[in-house]
Formats: sequence, structure tokens, C-alpha cells
Amino acid sequence: MEDAKAPHGDLDPIAFLIGRWRGEGVGGYPTMADFRYGEEVVFAQNGKPFLSYTQRTWALDDGRPLHSETGYWRPRPEGALEVVLAHPTGVAEIYYGTVAFSKIELATDVVVRTTSAKEVTALKRLYGLVDGKLLYAVDMAAVGHPLSPHLSATLERVEE
Amino acid sequence: MEDAKAPHGDLDPIAFLIGRWRGEGVGGYPTMADFRYGEEVVFAQNGKPFLSYTQRTWALDDGRPLHSETGYWRPRPEGALEVVLAHPTGVAEIYYGTVAFSKIELATDVVVRTTSAKEVTALKRLYGLVDGKLLYAVDMAAVGHPLSPHLSATLERVEE
Repeated sequence: MEDAKAPHGDLDPIAFLIGRWRGEGVGGYPTMADFRYGEEVVFAQNGKPFLSYTQRTWALDDGRPLHSETGYWRPRPEGALEVVLAHPTGVAEIYYGTVAFSKIELATDVVVRTTSAKEVTALKRLYGLVDGKLLYAVDMAAVGHPLSPHLSATLERVEE
Repeated sequence: MEDAKAPHGDLDPIAFLIGRWRGEGVGGYPTMADFRYGEEVVFAQNGKPFLSYTQRTWALDDGRPLHSETGYWRPRPEGALEVVLAHPTGVAEIYYGTVAFSKIELATDVVVRTTSAKEVTALKRLYGLVDGKLLYAVDMAAVGHPLSPHLSATLERVEE
């Protein structure tokens, strides 16, 4: 998406993420009604050993923006992975995880938040490439609830 | 930069940031030689009460990418401001600050980092609009040094 540099070799395990993805997801939580959403995700590389990541979701009825998040994915040796994310809700997250065979498992090491942010305390994320589509699921612990299913979506690649 | 929605009223104090900015900066630190860099910054809004922020810098000699960072700026009542940033170096930061008369002062409340990240412990940032240009300065405490001047740049608006 930026310069046409060859991807850094360290990106090999997560190179399958590179591109622009679009699709739909479903969300829910003990404190909220279930909902469906549209989503676009962009993973881009610039020759350095990380991917930049931006995500935004919208309501399917009128297209109004819902969530967004942004950050970086850093492969580490032996299939390890670090992810650093910022949210417009005033939350930042650091995840550790693993990648193997186009499947990524992430869990927060730390969640920090501003005084005005919702009380989010931990998350787990699962990403996988299945039949060329990017599937993910997010579990969240927040506002007194333990890790509970929150989001899942199926995205198709719309740009290399 | 995204949908053509009117900016949220809460953005008024920092609306002067909206747009795409380009320019040059100078960097240094007790542990490194001084250097100059090119920079692009984009502040965008989507009708919600925050600005999305992306930044990237490059070497002036060959254009190779240097730093980048991304996150969100959240105005709060009475001239207060929260900023959440993620860095590809494995660092996330939460800043509190104030904005008055197109001048923004920010200081980290918390810096978190992955095990592979450099030891950054605190930052202060100053942004200001002067004669239509965006000026900023960043002080950083890292690898055992107290808050010390690290970066400063002057950017011109290249897109509304």
C-alpha cells in the first residue's frame, strides 16, 4: 500500500495478511444486543519487519462509522508475534501470540486506557486464512465480565 | 480523508489539525547522531469525537522509511485532550494534555512496550500552529536518559 518495496523476510509467517480486506461480521456481549457490521482491514508493509494495520467498521443499515483501530504487527523468531494496537475509545493493547500455518492466536499482555475509556481488561484474538478468506474472532473481558465472545467476521481480499 | 461528514463539535479545539501535512524535521538524542528527516502526517475525522492520526518519516537522502506511528486524538471537556498512540517499535503510549489557542501540550501518563522494544519510559510533545504551519517538538526519556529533546519539525498543509 506504500512504497513497492519487497516485504522483509521476517514477515514471511504473516505475509498472507498483506492487502485490503472487506466483509461482514457479527458482534455481541453480555451487556449489548447482537449486531452485524461491515468491515475493512488493511495490512501494509514498507520493507521493514512489521505490518501496519488499520481497521474500521460501519453499520450495515446506514454506513455510519462504528469502531476503528490501528497499530502494528511484529513477527518475532520461532513463530512468535507481537501486536500493538490503539483504539479511538482511549484504549491501547499489547498482545503476544503465535503464528503457524496461516493461523494466528493473540492474547493481551497489557491493556492500558485513559480515564474516560470503558473498562476493558483483556482480549484474545484468533485470525486464520480459510479458503482464501480471512476469518477472525475476538473475545473480550470488560466492565466486570470475564473473557466472552465479542466479535467475529469473514473478510475477502479486495486488493493485493 | 474518510467520509465527508461534518466534524463533531467536540473537535473544535483541535480542528486546526485536520488535513495532510508534509515537511522536514531534525532529530537527535544523547545516544545517537543528529539527523534530518522528511515527514507526512494525516489527521482525519469521520464525524465522531476524535481524530485519527498517522505519521511516517523517511530519510532525506534515499527516501527509505524511518519511523511511523498511528493512533487517535480525543478532545475532552475544558480544553483537555487524550492521545493514544501505537508504534511499530512495540511501544504504546497514552498522553494527557491541554489545548488552547492552537497550541497543544501532551505528556505521557503511561508507556507500555513489548519485551523486544527499546526502553522508552516517558515523552512530552508540543504542537502548535504558527503562521499556518504545524510545528512540533518531542522530548523523550529512554534507555536511562531523562526527558531530552528528540525530534522537532515544521510541516505545511498539503491537503485539507
